[in-house]
Amino acid sequence: MARPKPLSGFPEFLPAGRMIEQQVLDILRETFELHGFAPVETRSVEPMAQLARKGEVDKEVYVVRRLHAEPGARSDDLGLHFDLTVPLARYVLENAGHLAFPFRRYQIQKVWRGERPQEGRYREFSQADIDIVGQQELAPHHDVEAPLVMLEALERLHVELGLPTVRMHVNNRKLSEGFYRGLGIEDTAAVLQRVDKFDKIGAGAVARLLIDEVSLSDDQAAQCVALAQINSTDESFVDQVRGLGVRHEMLDEGLAQLTQVVRAANRQVPGRLVADMKIARGLDYYTGTVYETELVGHEHMGSVSSGGRYDTLASDGKTTYPGVGISLGITRLLAPLISKGVVQCSRPVPSAVLVAVDDEETRDQAMAVAGSLRSRGIACEVAPKADKFGKQIRYADRRGIPFVWFGGVSGEVKDIRSGDQQPADAATWSPPPADLKPAVTTF
Amino acid sequence: MARPKPLSGFPEFLPAGRMIEQQVLDILRETFELHGFAPVETRSVEPMAQLARKGEVDKEVYVVRRLHAEPGARSDDLGLHFDLTVPLARYVLENAGHLAFPFRRYQIQKVWRGERPQEGRYREFSQADIDIVGQQELAPHHDVEAPLVMLEALERLHVELGLPTVRMHVNNRKLSEGFYRGLGIEDTAAVLQRVDKFDKIGAGAVARLLIDEVSLSDDQAAQCVALAQINSTDESFVDQVRGLGVRHEMLDEGLAQLTQVVRAANRQVPGRLVADMKIARGLDYYTGTVYETELVGHEHMGSVSSGGRYDTLASDGKTTYPGVGISLGITRLLAPLISKGVVQCSRPVPSAVLVAVDDEETRDQAMAVAGSLRSRGIACEVAPKADKFGKQIRYADRRGIPFVWFGGVSGEVKDIRSGDQQPADAATWSPPPADLKPAVTTF
Repeated sequence: MARPKPLSGFPEFLPAGRMIEQQVLDILRETFELHGFAPVETRSVEPMAQLARKGEVDKEVYVVRRLHAEPGARSDDLGLHFDLTVPLARYVLENAGHLAFPFRRYQIQKVWRGERPQEGRYREFSQADIDIVGQQELAPHHDVEAPLVMLEALERLHVELGLPTVRMHVNNRKLSEGFYRGLGIEDTAAVLQRVDKFDKIGAGAVARLLIDEVSLSDDQAAQCVALAQINSTDESFVDQVRGLGVRHEMLDEGLAQLTQVVRAANRQVPGRLVADMKIARGLDYYTGTVYETELVGHEHMGSVSSGGRYDTLASDGKTTYPGVGISLGITRLLAPLISKGVVQCSRPVPSAVLVAVDDEETRDQAMAVAGSLRSRGIACEVAPKADKFGKQIRYADRRGIPFVWFGGVSGEVKDIRSGDQQPADAATWSPPPADLKPAVTTF
Repeated sequence: MARPKPLSGFPEFLPAGRMIEQQVLDILRETFELHGFAPVETRSVEPMAQLARKGEVDKEVYVVRRLHAEPGARSDDLGLHFDLTVPLARYVLENAGHLAFPFRRYQIQKVWRGERPQEGRYREFSQADIDIVGQQELAPHHDVEAPLVMLEALERLHVELGLPTVRMHVNNRKLSEGFYRGLGIEDTAAVLQRVDKFDKIGAGAVARLLIDEVSLSDDQAAQCVALAQINSTDESFVDQVRGLGVRHEMLDEGLAQLTQVVRAANRQVPGRLVADMKIARGLDYYTGTVYETELVGHEHMGSVSSGGRYDTLASDGKTTYPGVGISLGITRLLAPLISKGVVQCSRPVPSAVLVAVDDEETRDQAMAVAGSLRSRGIACEVAPKADKFGKQIRYADRRGIPFVWFGGVSGEVKDIRSGDQQPADAATWSPPPADLKPAVTTF
């Protein structure tokens, strides 16, 4: 078999990259669990009928079929899930009798999209979702809670691993829709679709589209564009919106909810959240707060974390399950940072110590040293071959293992970076804390 | 949407089951890393040409195809991997220049097989593999190492989580093949295939098959059956085999290698490993030691962990990569134990504490209490509604949360199981260690 080539759109990491990803996943999991989110893992496939119901996305679905399936076999009408929201909705309906509501769950899994691969677009990628799902009702304070939990996780990735800081842009559908209604506009969805292009085409072009395509008056269009230009990291956006002179009950509600989010974020993760009235993404799908998150200094990567409130996540006809959630694109966040070397791992193996072998006859002795170190949480491996010590040191060096152990349980340990060699007892010696585990560093 | 039904062969856990699985995965990961195995995660798909090359299994492959793929598009000739060995072989060839050999990796992922679902057979399941892969050569002591690492992990699952103990049955292809050759038998693979049925059909029937189908003499067949009946947890199997009076160089080699495995296992995990000469499974594929593992008291579940030595894991024509590995069927191990209630989790949520809310006006105060507890690693959630306290306590009870917090940072905490309520400070109070995290218990 000739050397295989990577498959476009299906990124894979070398072990060092995977160790970075694992440290990220550990922090996400710990943060989500500290906030009482329970883990769920769903199967990778859903019936095509379920996946196809979600409209536009059906073209991106990967269909799954047994190679030797009987023709027309019903169980083969399956597709790989393209997000973790469709599976969650199904899981909630299927298990509603076994879940306590509001149901708080996180889910970290691969998803698949049959897209044309391009920079930042993957066909297989991992994402981490948190959602809070109510039964019939879900209090608005959860709209404040969900983004704060994700921001706390992202802040830990910054502080503990050195990943870039984030800026989360938040808007509220009620605010935009209420404002448009206050202007006497009925087709608010059409306005949102044009405002969504604000970043790409600019204020003037959006105004033109609103006039030409949605038949707004010059004044209405100007007001919509003025709203889209408002943003603030504090509560001053409220006065700015008020200053435009539009009044509507739904606008008041949206302003109040967005104020809650901004206030809570400034208390817990100051400077990371901005109320941004041009965020329209998914506003026709979401029904309350919406979130979008960029990496500071890497804005071209697009949103790495987004979500919002949906009043009907699932329904069985009798019971409706509203939800609010936010999703983090793990591959989208890490793959570019790792491939560009912005984030690196101090070594590509877990081992802190290589236990040298004098002679194949004394391999048992080396295994005893390794066992003693492992019992105290020190990862190590025994040299594969009783080579000359110089060769064994070079072996450790090639793997990035910082320490080499010589002799038995009462032996000597060499830091191969400094060359320093000291007597050591395998029952008590430990590497410096910084060398115990592979460390993530950023450049 | 009506209540969805589970898909046969695609098991899913409720959150409590997933938390058990996570604790199992944590122990596996920690054990593998302590032994210097680096983590790898490969994409879920491989080119069909690669998957189909593996002979028999092609009928079990799930083909993956974009719903709106262009006809004949090459990139759609993909299938979901059915094990983690085919992806490893490809990964090693693709990245050989970036890996240090012997390459030690573990991999914990889903795999898919388009089988007819039945008890213990799944279409989607998780497995955990460890492999050691050499470049051109791989020392035989790794045949001893691989099963010991897996046995250490399985022993921790028993000691720390209460899972059943295991019994690993080990044989060596060289031992069996050498023995058959010593008897003058040439078609040793044909003998192995019949011996493989020993457990199902018994000694007499195996002897009949060897005489009728492989044309062995009565004496040869009796000797083969006698070999298959030998097993021991210590090194006494060597004398038993010797007692059959067969001599062959390859037999000697096999006996020596198997002795090494038994000796090392008895030192590290006494009583968990048995040399068992009837283990023939995969012997036509493997080239040295082979492993198979049953759960004591749950033998009907079949082997939960198996593997062995293969002299050619991968080859690019110039370089050959021999390997030795062992795989643990996580879903196969856990799904029956969890669904029968043999293994349970003390609560279905991570939260140890529910922080009660007096009044929606004081939700901020409850959030401050929660923040203080979380900063010290105590998982908690804030009550979703400022209900009467009795209702909030019932809410905690329904979720299995053991403690409810009342008041502010200087407040009171109630153990809702005993009813005991005490003054407590959120900056210093901790639950008893046993209540900090959901605990896995066995019945």
